[in-house]
Amino acid sequence: MTSPTPDKLTVDSDRLWQSLMDLAEIGAYRDERTGLRGVNRLALTDADAAGRRRVGAWMEEARLSVRIDQMGNIYGRREGADPSAAPVLTGSHIDSVATAGAFDGCLGVLGGIEVVRTLNDRGITTRRPIEVAVFTEEEGVRFGTDMLGSAVAAGRLTLEYAHALTDRDGRTLGGELTRTGFDGPADVRLAPPHAYVECHIEQGPVLAEHNVPVGVVTGVQGISWQEITIHGRAAHAGTTPTRLRADAALAAAQIIVQLRAMVDSGAYGELRATVGHLNVHPDLTNIVPARAEMTVDLRNPDDTHMVRAEEALAAFLRDLEDSQPGLTLATRRMAQTAHVPFDKSVQKTIAQAADDHDLPYIPLLSGAGHDAQEIAAICPTAMIFVRGEHDGISHNPREYSTPQACAHGVNVLATTLLRLANED
Amino acid sequence: MTSPTPDKLTVDSDRLWQSLMDLAEIGAYRDERTGLRGVNRLALTDADAAGRRRVGAWMEEARLSVRIDQMGNIYGRREGADPSAAPVLTGSHIDSVATAGAFDGCLGVLGGIEVVRTLNDRGITTRRPIEVAVFTEEEGVRFGTDMLGSAVAAGRLTLEYAHALTDRDGRTLGGELTRTGFDGPADVRLAPPHAYVECHIEQGPVLAEHNVPVGVVTGVQGISWQEITIHGRAAHAGTTPTRLRADAALAAAQIIVQLRAMVDSGAYGELRATVGHLNVHPDLTNIVPARAEMTVDLRNPDDTHMVRAEEALAAFLRDLEDSQPGLTLATRRMAQTAHVPFDKSVQKTIAQAADDHDLPYIPLLSGAGHDAQEIAAICPTAMIFVRGEHDGISHNPREYSTPQACAHGVNVLATTLLRLANED
Repeated sequence: MTSPTPDKLTVDSDRLWQSLMDLAEIGAYRDERTGLRGVNRLALTDADAAGRRRVGAWMEEARLSVRIDQMGNIYGRREGADPSAAPVLTGSHIDSVATAGAFDGCLGVLGGIEVVRTLNDRGITTRRPIEVAVFTEEEGVRFGTDMLGSAVAAGRLTLEYAHALTDRDGRTLGGELTRTGFDGPADVRLAPPHAYVECHIEQGPVLAEHNVPVGVVTGVQGISWQEITIHGRAAHAGTTPTRLRADAALAAAQIIVQLRAMVDSGAYGELRATVGHLNVHPDLTNIVPARAEMTVDLRNPDDTHMVRAEEALAAFLRDLEDSQPGLTLATRRMAQTAHVPFDKSVQKTIAQAADDHDLPYIPLLSGAGHDAQEIAAICPTAMIFVRGEHDGISHNPREYSTPQACAHGVNVLATTLLRLANED
Repeated sequence: MTSPTPDKLTVDSDRLWQSLMDLAEIGAYRDERTGLRGVNRLALTDADAAGRRRVGAWMEEARLSVRIDQMGNIYGRREGADPSAAPVLTGSHIDSVATAGAFDGCLGVLGGIEVVRTLNDRGITTRRPIEVAVFTEEEGVRFGTDMLGSAVAAGRLTLEYAHALTDRDGRTLGGELTRTGFDGPADVRLAPPHAYVECHIEQGPVLAEHNVPVGVVTGVQGISWQEITIHGRAAHAGTTPTRLRADAALAAAQIIVQLRAMVDSGAYGELRATVGHLNVHPDLTNIVPARAEMTVDLRNPDDTHMVRAEEALAAFLRDLEDSQPGLTLATRRMAQTAHVPFDKSVQKTIAQAADDHDLPYIPLLSGAGHDAQEIAAICPTAMIFVRGEHDGISHNPREYSTPQACAHGVNVLATTLLRLANED
């Protein structure tokens, strides 16, 4: 006698929370200023490798069959009644920025494993296989390109390109895969799944402002990353007349102030602009800097506004160069992604699951980039957002979603995966 | 039969030039962008220690009796007919910034040694002893306080303060003195010399603009060094609304732009402002910086204008802090020196020597700080400036004074020292 196949799944919220807290121990540090505990698991560092081993062990405990591909992406597969059917994929990443919290990325990976544990507990066999993915270097802060593992898996970037990327100390990603033992044998090109669903913290204040626990993500806004290198002229701070200076730090400062003016002008829609990386050389108190390096991160939900903002920045850089003899500016494109709309049918399945769990939701656009925007190129894809506290702050030790909020999101994920995995 | 005591001295310009070029080999590097050869001899590094040993050997070859004090200051003494008379002191420093040329400081030290060689060649005995000094950490870029060795020798700073200063890697100056073998036994407090005269490159364009080879320095303008630490809040670049940001990099940029506006306003006299050191944390492309550190170097020939500029900057920092919730700014005073006027009688002796060498000169104020401003506290002091090429650029591999310009300055130094050393 077989029990009737359930159509709704509720996970063990305590077990989910314990996994999140356990993983947060790996790469943990104490923030010197606030005393808060944060996470530092930059991709393919020793801490990240330790986190990967922990997640791999959890996958095996959940009887997933684990494979690692040539990019170090990890897939745990739960077989379906029809092993030849395309699997339903879920997952995210566990690499972090240097000053992270416990939730970003981890919730999607550990949420996926928790769904599998729940399916196991209830003895449910789905028609299609379910796979849980851990993508490599989603943050992009170590090797300079974000969503890297998923971008190679989905075919947007080549394996050769990714392996040759270097960190600031000149170490290649390929070398770090080998060093950490995550240079797997599986083909990196992912066979198109039936669908991809990723659960992730919102990293913003919108769900809290609307007082709803979950969001159905309609897509990801456009992202533009550039590196700007400014060459000026080193000179003595005390003796060089101001008119004879070509001050690279001043030029960098003018760019930063201009970017904020562009944001505040409202002329570029919902533009966000961040200069997160900045340094000057020779970096000495009494020397006018000869060189400055900086990154510019632009986000825009509207591709037309994004193009106009990029053009306006380029024009400002040209004017700046012309205004000061001895100053030269060079830009290098690090990353550029257009607005990625998600699949309406998957969004509908997520919305229905939220309804069936009696969870209010709103549709919203993602401000951050996610692996889902890469996988969206090869299969129907959407995301579930989970509410965060403190205005949804993330990439910071203050990042926090309550155990209940996490469970809400993963319950919606569980029911969504169950239904997608039973589709024809 | 004794020859009549000469009243004018001309040095061997080729020998002087060769010494300058030889010393520039120590710590030499190739600038990657321009292909020019520069010098990197930060104080008490291995390169600086090698330079010190070279200079010590030259002193001994010139039969100077060498002593090293507790700050690593090196003195080479040429005895006078009256050994009990206070010596005439000359010298400068051989430590450099990280991107230096061959002349800054070195000309004063090697010029002093060249004067001694010339006195030896001509068998001249002066009434007073002549001493050539090499002062430690004049640049201040490694341990954060400039004119350090001379400041301790003249009694403005204590030995304990200086020994406890640390570089960015946490190494103490005292430890580096021991490591390099320059922790000498001589008492650091200098017995007041009869006079101090320092020959130095101008590091500015004024002598070239007036088409004169040498300058008689009337004093040193005021210098103010501060470190500003800005605490903001780390946040995700894609998801954190602009209104919720406390962006430390933006605040740093606003300070830099404001400083230039203050300079350009003309409201603070001949103010010069430089932000030479700047960094942000966590320094990642997609994180709003939580912290920024920067230095502000202000120079002003007028103490009243300097005080007003410092007050205006402090007011701007307070307004900036108030304008953005979550932003806090802290300042730390690194160095502050008022305008130091030089001794009129020594200036007159220098001017007379220039006249006697048929060298046109102008009086001018120094834009840079020099050991002379410290020694001026304990004896009559003045300086000789030598013209530089390329608008007098210094702290840069392009720093250059011609062999003839160097010889002109050292000839004036030689005659000045000879006359001062024969004074009662």
